[in-house]
Parts: sequence; C-alpha cells; structure tokens
Amino acid sequence: MRVFFNSRHDAHDGNGEMHHGRLIPCFENSRRMAIIRDAVAHSVQAQLVDPTDHGMAPIAAIHDADYLSFLENAWADWNAAGNDHDAFPYVWPTAGFSGGHPAHISARLGQYAISSDTPITKGTWKAAYWGAQTVVSAAEAVWNDGEASFALTRPPGHHAHANRYGGYCFLNNSAIAAQQMITKGAKKVAILDIDYHHGNGTQDIFYDRGDVLTVSIHADPKHQFPFFMGYENETGRLDGQGANLNIVLPGGSDFGPWSQGFARAIQKIITWQPQALVIALGVDAHEAETLCDFKLQTDDFKRIGQMIGRLGLKTVFVMEGGYAHDVIGFNVAAVLGGYLSEIKK
Amino acid sequence: MRVFFNSRHDAHDGNGEMHHGRLIPCFENSRRMAIIRDAVAHSVQAQLVDPTDHGMAPIAAIHDADYLSFLENAWADWNAAGNDHDAFPYVWPTAGFSGGHPAHISARLGQYAISSDTPITKGTWKAAYWGAQTVVSAAEAVWNDGEASFALTRPPGHHAHANRYGGYCFLNNSAIAAQQMITKGAKKVAILDIDYHHGNGTQDIFYDRGDVLTVSIHADPKHQFPFFMGYENETGRLDGQGANLNIVLPGGSDFGPWSQGFARAIQKIITWQPQALVIALGVDAHEAETLCDFKLQTDDFKRIGQMIGRLGLKTVFVMEGGYAHDVIGFNVAAVLGGYLSEIKK
Repeated sequence: MRVFFNSRHDAHDGNGEMHHGRLIPCFENSRRMAIIRDAVAHSVQAQLVDPTDHGMAPIAAIHDADYLSFLENAWADWNAAGNDHDAFPYVWPTAGFSGGHPAHISARLGQYAISSDTPITKGTWKAAYWGAQTVVSAAEAVWNDGEASFALTRPPGHHAHANRYGGYCFLNNSAIAAQQMITKGAKKVAILDIDYHHGNGTQDIFYDRGDVLTVSIHADPKHQFPFFMGYENETGRLDGQGANLNIVLPGGSDFGPWSQGFARAIQKIITWQPQALVIALGVDAHEAETLCDFKLQTDDFKRIGQMIGRLGLKTVFVMEGGYAHDVIGFNVAAVLGGYLSEIKK
Repeated sequence: MRVFFNSRHDAHDGNGEMHHGRLIPCFENSRRMAIIRDAVAHSVQAQLVDPTDHGMAPIAAIHDADYLSFLENAWADWNAAGNDHDAFPYVWPTAGFSGGHPAHISARLGQYAISSDTPITKGTWKAAYWGAQTVVSAAEAVWNDGEASFALTRPPGHHAHANRYGGYCFLNNSAIAAQQMITKGAKKVAILDIDYHHGNGTQDIFYDRGDVLTVSIHADPKHQFPFFMGYENETGRLDGQGANLNIVLPGGSDFGPWSQGFARAIQKIITWQPQALVIALGVDAHEAETLCDFKLQTDDFKRIGQMIGRLGLKTVFVMEGGYAHDVIGFNVAAVLGGYLSEIKK
C-alpha cells in the first residue's frame, strides 16, 4: 500500500496541552508517527511516498481565508507580543458578546479556537500545511488509479472547522482529501470517521452540502469531547439534509455495540452510493487508550478494515487520533491489513 | 464611611490563573482585601459592617437560574469527576457548534465561561454568595438613608454576565447592587465603571433596559481584555438604547486623556438624572499595575472621588479590580477620601 508520509510533522512540537484544567505532556506527540510508520512498513509492505506541494488552493477550498492567514501568522504574532512559550487561547467570544475585531493575538487565538487544549508552536503551520499536502497527494493518487492510499500525518484534522482549530487539529485533512476528489471530478464522496471522538469539524464543513456524506461513529458527546456537537439528531441541512449520520455509543462499549453501530454506517454508505471513500482513521477506540473508554481489541480493527474493503470503493485512509504508543502501530496496521486482505479476494 | 466587608472572601483561593497561555500565581488573591481594609480603616474612619443574608432573590434578579445552579455545584461536580485541583474550562460552544446539552463538568465549565483564566475552587461559591450579600447590604443601606457605603469584597463582579463567569468574576456585584435599589423603589440607577477593563458583564446584563445606565471608561478592547466587547459603538438596545456608554482610551493613557473621558462619563450621568449611583471601583488604572498600562497616580484617584462626590447622588462603591499590593490600599482610600471631602463641603 502507498503510504504518503508527512516527514515535516514534527515541526509541530508542543511542550504540553491543557487537559481538564491542567497542563500535561502532549498526548498528540511526534513519536506516534514513527511508531505507526514502522508498524505499517513491516505488515502491509508500505511503499513510503513523499507528498508533492499543491499549494494553498486545496486548503482554501475548505478553510476560510482569514482563518488561514491567522494560522500561518499565529506564532510570529505571538512571538512579536513577547512570548516564546506555546500559544494557547484563554478568552473567547461567547454568545453574549458583541463581537468587535480585537487585534491582540491572545484574543485572536480565542476567536479561532474551539478549545484551549491545543498548543500552537513555531512549526505548527509547517506541519499542518504539509499534512494537507500529504492528504491531497494521497487523494489524487487514489482518484487517479483506484488503488488505496494511506496519508500518515499529524497533527490530526477532524476537529478543525472551516475557521476554527482545537482538539489537536488545525487543518481538516479528511475534508481536504474528500474535497480534492470532488475537485478532480468525483460527484459524491463519503467520509467515514471511526475515531473515538466525533468529527465535529468535518460535519460542520459539509453540513449544508449534498455531495459529501459525513458519517461518524463515536463516544457520546454528553460525556466526551467535543461535547457541544455529535448528537444523533444532527442530520444535515439544506442540500446536506440526510447527508450527516452520527452514531453515538455509550461509554465502555466493546466491539459488540461498536460493530452494530458500524453496520449502520456501512449500510448508509452503500445506500448513498459514493464514488470514493475517505476513512478518518482514528484508532483510539482501542481498550489501551487512556484518553478514551471504548474496549476494542487489535483484532477488531482488522475486522473493521475488512468491512471497509468489502465496500469496493476508491479509498483514502487519513490518520486521525490514537495515542497509546504500545498499540497504535498494531491497530493502524490491522485496519490496513484487513482492508488489503479483503480487496485481494 | 460604612464599609460592608465580605469576611468570607478568602474561601475563594485559587492556586493559579491561566494568563496568555501560562498558569501563573493569581493576580486576584486574598491579600488584596486585607490591604484595602487596613488602608481605608486609617484614612476614612471606616466603620466595618458585616453583611446580612438576603438569600438568593437579589442574586436571581440578575443571574439565570441554570447558571446559579451550575456555579453552586461546580466544585462538587468537578470533585465527583475525580479532580481536586482548581477547575478551569478548556472547551467551549463556538458559533459553528450545534449546541447539545453535555453533562460532563468540563463541558459545563466551558458552557458558562467567557475565559479560562478564572479558577473555581472549593470555596468559590461561598465567597461569591457572600460578596453578593455584601453589595446588597451596602445598596440597601445607601438607598435607605442616603449615606454612601463601600462594599469591600472579592472575587470581583463586572466581567460576569447573567449566565457566564470569567475575568476573575462570578456574580456581578455592581449589577446586583443597582438592581437591589431598583427593587427597593429606585426608578433610575446609574453604574459608573472606572476599572481599567471594560465592564462587559454589566453592559450585557442591562443592555436592553432603560432603567439602568451603564457607563464604563476603559482600555481599548482591541488590545485588552475582554477583547470582544466594550467598543464605543455599543450604545444599548430596545429600551436600553442610549443607556450604555463606553469610553475607550488608548494604551498608556495618563490622567490627561483619562480625565477628559471621565468628564464625558460625568456629563452623561448628570444628563440622565439617576436617583442613585453604583461605582464599579477598580483601581487598576494606576501606573503600578502590571496587568494594565494606564498611568494614573494616587492623587488622580482622589480627584476622581471628588468628582463623584460633586454629583450629589446616593452612592454605593463596589470593589472591582486592582492588583498591585503596594498601591491598591492607597488608591481605594484616595477615591473614598476624595468623595468624602467633597460631600462634606
């Protein structure tokens, strides 16, 4: 399998993240990439491919211009304000506020953030920019010849909205991948998000659109990030009515309830008849993931890959969450191996 | 002068606050109260008075019931979720979000916060509740006999909205004081906020109302907290149209521009003809305040007190910001002393 690899990912290198009121070491750290790369190299005969630079157009097709300008300059602005530690927001425009256009970088961080967990560092833009190039390269390759690709990159993307970052995410890689196939001629693309957390950014980006189906299977947002979105009554709007499906599972779910939910996801995708599929590949539903409370086993991830393979669609896998160093490599390799085993039948 | 003193203030005792991306010792700390109490005791023959308990009604006249329920139970909920460190929010419902009703305490902290700078501790509710009783007691005393009172309390209040906390504030003491006089029969009350920061909560609470004039003189929110509110084009709405005045001063202002802005504030109050006045008494416009960049001197605060005294209104002083231990006592005493010197003429 072709593995498009973002070798600049480690330019994003936070010293810590805010987590339930405390600054702790980053769950979303650069070691994740080496572990996954090594694991897939051994198990799925990964052919490592460097992304090519497609410039800003594929990114600007998803994200707002003012947001991208903010993101590209955030560290320089933060630094110019006298700071050399990681940038975090601490104040945000709530519903009661009148708006205004604050110039201070601390205010602009809050204006463009959904959460204060995510550090912006000197190399964040570089890592995120090349992450987007990685998924664009992978999506183009898949659309052109039909062979599946895996975009191995961090920081992840699925919590990023058109104009907001947070939850470790800056650019919505899965959305950019789907859009790139639309740009290249696809009429209908589905995104299936199997990360433990709801893909709120992806949902929001395509919520009014009928050409991209967004399906997410995740922990109940009543109790888990992103909290304010991801409920089952969110089904899309305008042209997008019926093109969003949230499958919410209770805390502690093992592969029993998970696979039942997944069957609903698969059925929706089959009925919707997309020409291509993006898998937002988080593996944090595994039982060893301390941020999360699902109970999937590595063998379950293999079954997930097999079910995806049986869809017979052009498929781009995009790396999202998964933080337990001991198992993430095995779990990603299990999904990809399962997929390959099925499509070769 | 009667000084209603909240002796339970130190139940709110954070270990730190989030400030531009870092956890630092609390600017808003309990030593402030002892310093101010001692300074006014010596300079204005303060008669220390304990507040009486007026219950929840005066608080519920300003704040939403769900917010009060959240605030009263926040520490217990946070503690029940396994935390014993200060509670801070880290995720909030931004414009792109669908809403939902998350149950998790971390989400509810974000739902009811404007910023992540403000710790909630075991005794926060107790301190805030008694702070409200302090201003209610002070306001009733002033309304009944016309003699000015000073409500010396922390945490401060002017950043707190009807349903949101932040900027060190939980219950909007100045708003509660004004409302209490309305409840007791006043037809028109003015609130004059001289804190360095805009009184966003106070503005928002009365924005649609014609019976409470809100005037705030403060640093430009383009560059200073609360950033998203406090601009000069915010003048009120519906019945409140024309009953909000924001006087925005550039960074580095000394008493020259400050007193010119203050003259506009005074003129507005005179024209509006209130029956009573609440002074949101922040003294952080002083040159020694490191959080702020105005350049007022202690003698300037005396002049401010004199100008307030010349208004000849029933006046309640409510303690807001001011953090420089070396000078806050002198500056508060200067305002009160200036006031007393004028009304005795």
